[in-house]
Amino acid sequence: MTTTPVRSLSPVLDTGRTTVAPALRDAVRTHLGPEMSRIAEYHFGWADAAGRPTGSWGGKMVRPTLALLSARAAGGTAEDGLPAALAMELVHNFSLLHDDIMDGDETRRGRATAWTVFGEPNAILAGDAMVTAATSVLLAAPAPGARAATVSLMAATQRMIDGQTADVAFEQRDDVTLAECVRMAGDKTGALLGCSCALGAELVGAEAGLVEHLSAFGEHIGLAFQLVDDLIGIWGDQDRAGKRIGADLRARKKSLPVVAALNAPGTEELRALYLGPEPLTETAVRHVADLVERAGGRDWAEREAAHRLTAAQEALAAARIPEDVRDAFLEVAGFVVGRRL
Amino acid sequence: MTTTPVRSLSPVLDTGRTTVAPALRDAVRTHLGPEMSRIAEYHFGWADAAGRPTGSWGGKMVRPTLALLSARAAGGTAEDGLPAALAMELVHNFSLLHDDIMDGDETRRGRATAWTVFGEPNAILAGDAMVTAATSVLLAAPAPGARAATVSLMAATQRMIDGQTADVAFEQRDDVTLAECVRMAGDKTGALLGCSCALGAELVGAEAGLVEHLSAFGEHIGLAFQLVDDLIGIWGDQDRAGKRIGADLRARKKSLPVVAALNAPGTEELRALYLGPEPLTETAVRHVADLVERAGGRDWAEREAAHRLTAAQEALAAARIPEDVRDAFLEVAGFVVGRRL
Repeated sequence: MTTTPVRSLSPVLDTGRTTVAPALRDAVRTHLGPEMSRIAEYHFGWADAAGRPTGSWGGKMVRPTLALLSARAAGGTAEDGLPAALAMELVHNFSLLHDDIMDGDETRRGRATAWTVFGEPNAILAGDAMVTAATSVLLAAPAPGARAATVSLMAATQRMIDGQTADVAFEQRDDVTLAECVRMAGDKTGALLGCSCALGAELVGAEAGLVEHLSAFGEHIGLAFQLVDDLIGIWGDQDRAGKRIGADLRARKKSLPVVAALNAPGTEELRALYLGPEPLTETAVRHVADLVERAGGRDWAEREAAHRLTAAQEALAAARIPEDVRDAFLEVAGFVVGRRL
Repeated sequence: MTTTPVRSLSPVLDTGRTTVAPALRDAVRTHLGPEMSRIAEYHFGWADAAGRPTGSWGGKMVRPTLALLSARAAGGTAEDGLPAALAMELVHNFSLLHDDIMDGDETRRGRATAWTVFGEPNAILAGDAMVTAATSVLLAAPAPGARAATVSLMAATQRMIDGQTADVAFEQRDDVTLAECVRMAGDKTGALLGCSCALGAELVGAEAGLVEHLSAFGEHIGLAFQLVDDLIGIWGDQDRAGKRIGADLRARKKSLPVVAALNAPGTEELRALYLGPEPLTETAVRHVADLVERAGGRDWAEREAAHRLTAAQEALAAARIPEDVRDAFLEVAGFVVGRRL
C-alpha cells in the first residue's frame, strides 16, 4: 500500500519515520489481538474508525527516531536499534491512550481520541496491550543488551507513571512547590525522552558511561520541551501553536511558569484568582497571564529552558559518538524544543 | 509488624502466602512511587483508604503459590520461584484494578474498589504501575530463565487482555458461539493460571517439555474454575458463594453455560428473554436459569468442567516432577475449582 508522510519534518525525522512506520505496523499486528490492533491502527492514525486506511504514517516518531540514533551512537546500525524504537513508540502511545481518558481529552492531533470512539474499556485495554507489546518486542531483540534495555525501559515507564500521578494530584493542591513541579515534568516528559536517547545504545551493549550521557541529553531536552510547551500554552502564537492558547490557564493547570509565579513573593492576587473556584473568563485568563509574567514566571521558564538546552548540549558533547550522529541528535532536539516557537 | 491470615485456606496456600506476602510488600515499596504504593497497599488489603495498616495479608495468593510450586517442580527451591510469584500477583492485580473500572464494579472482596476510593485516573495508573513492576521484578531475578520467563509472562498478559476485550465485545453481540466463549475464558482466566504453573520452572531454566505440561495443567484448571464459577453464579448456594447468585444473569453476561444454551436448538424463548432489552425481574432471572438448564447449558458446563479436571490431571501426570510438588499442585487446584461448590 502507498503511504506518504503529510509533510517533511526534518531530514533525520523523515528517515526515522520511513524506517519505523512499517515495522511498527508489523509489531502491532504480531503482538496485539485483532480487536486491539484495530484500535491501535485508529489511534496511530493509520486507519479511520471503520478500519479504512488513511494513508497516514501516524505521529512524528520523535522517540523512535532518537532510539535509532542511539544505536548508531554506540556503533550499531539503525536497524539494530529498531526494537528499541518500536518499544519507545509503544510505551509513549500507551501513555497517550491512558492520559486522554484521565484528562477527559476528546481530541488529539485533530482526531477524536480512542476512548471517545471505542469506549473507555477498549481504550484502557489498548493501552495495556501496547505496554505489554513494548516489553515483548524489546525482549525478542537478538541483541546482547535486550534484558538491560528492558529493565531501563520499565524504570523510565515507572517514572512516567509517577509523573502523571503527580500531575493528577497537583490539580487538588494549592501548595505545589517549584521543585515538585520540575520533578513532575522530569518524570512525565524527561524520563521517556532520556530513555529514547539511551535505549538503542543499551540494546547493542554500549558501556554504562555512554548510556548515561545519552540519557542525560534526552532528559534535559525533555524538560526544555516541557518548559517551551508550557510557555507556548500561555504566550504562544495561536496560528503556530498545536494547541489552544490559554487552555492550560483556563483549566488552572499547575504548569511550570505558573508554579514558578505562584511561589514568588507578592502574588496574592494571582493566588486568589488561580486557586479560587470561579470559572476564568477570557479576560481573566489574559489577566492571569500578565500576573504570571509580572511575578517572573515567564522569565524563569525561558531561562530554565535555555539552561536545559545548554546542559543537553554538554551531555552530548561528553558522549564519544560519531559526528554525524551527534548532528542528527541535535537536529531532532532542535525540532522537539523549537517546533512551535 | 504482626500480620496474621484471617483463616487457613489449605496448608500449601498458607505456606505460599507466608512466603509471598512480605516479599510482595517489599516489591511494591521498591518499584512503585509513594502515591502508587499507597493505592496498591489499599487494593491489596494491607491498608485502609487512609493508609492505616489493616493487619491483613491480602488475597488468597493462588497464582504466586502456583509459581513457587512451579520452581520446585523443576528442581529449584520455592525461594528461586519468588520473582515469578511476585510478577504473577502483580499482573493479576493490574488486571483486577483495570477490570473493576471497565465493569463499573464498586466492591471487591467486600471492600470498595480502588477507583471508587482514589478516582479512576489513579486506579488506571496503579494498574499501569503494577504491570510495569511485574516485568521489573522478573527481569531482576538472578536466574538463567529470567528473559524467557518474562517473554512468557507478556504473552500470557496479552492473551488475558484479548480475553477481557472479547468479554467487553460480547456484551454487544447476540451471536457469540460456544467456541468463541470457550476461547475467551481460556484467554481471560486460563492464560494467567497456565503461566503461573509454568513461570517458576521457566525462571529456573526448566526444559521446554516440562514448561508445557505445567502450563497445560494450569490452563485446564483455569477453564474448570471459570466453568464452576459460572455454574455457581446461576445455581450456587447463596450462603457459600462469594458473589450474588443470579447477578450474572441479571447483567445478561455471556457466561459459558448461557452461551452453550443460547446455541442449542429450540431456545427461542431464552433468546428472546436474554437478548431482549427488558430489565430482568427476580422471577424472570429464575425462569432464565430454568431455560438455560432445560437447554442443556448446565449439563454441558458440568461435563466440560469434569473433562477439564481430567485433562489437568493428565497434563500433570505427564510432567516428571517430585511427588510432593505434584500433591501440592493438586491441593491448590482442588481449592481453586472446588472452593465454593
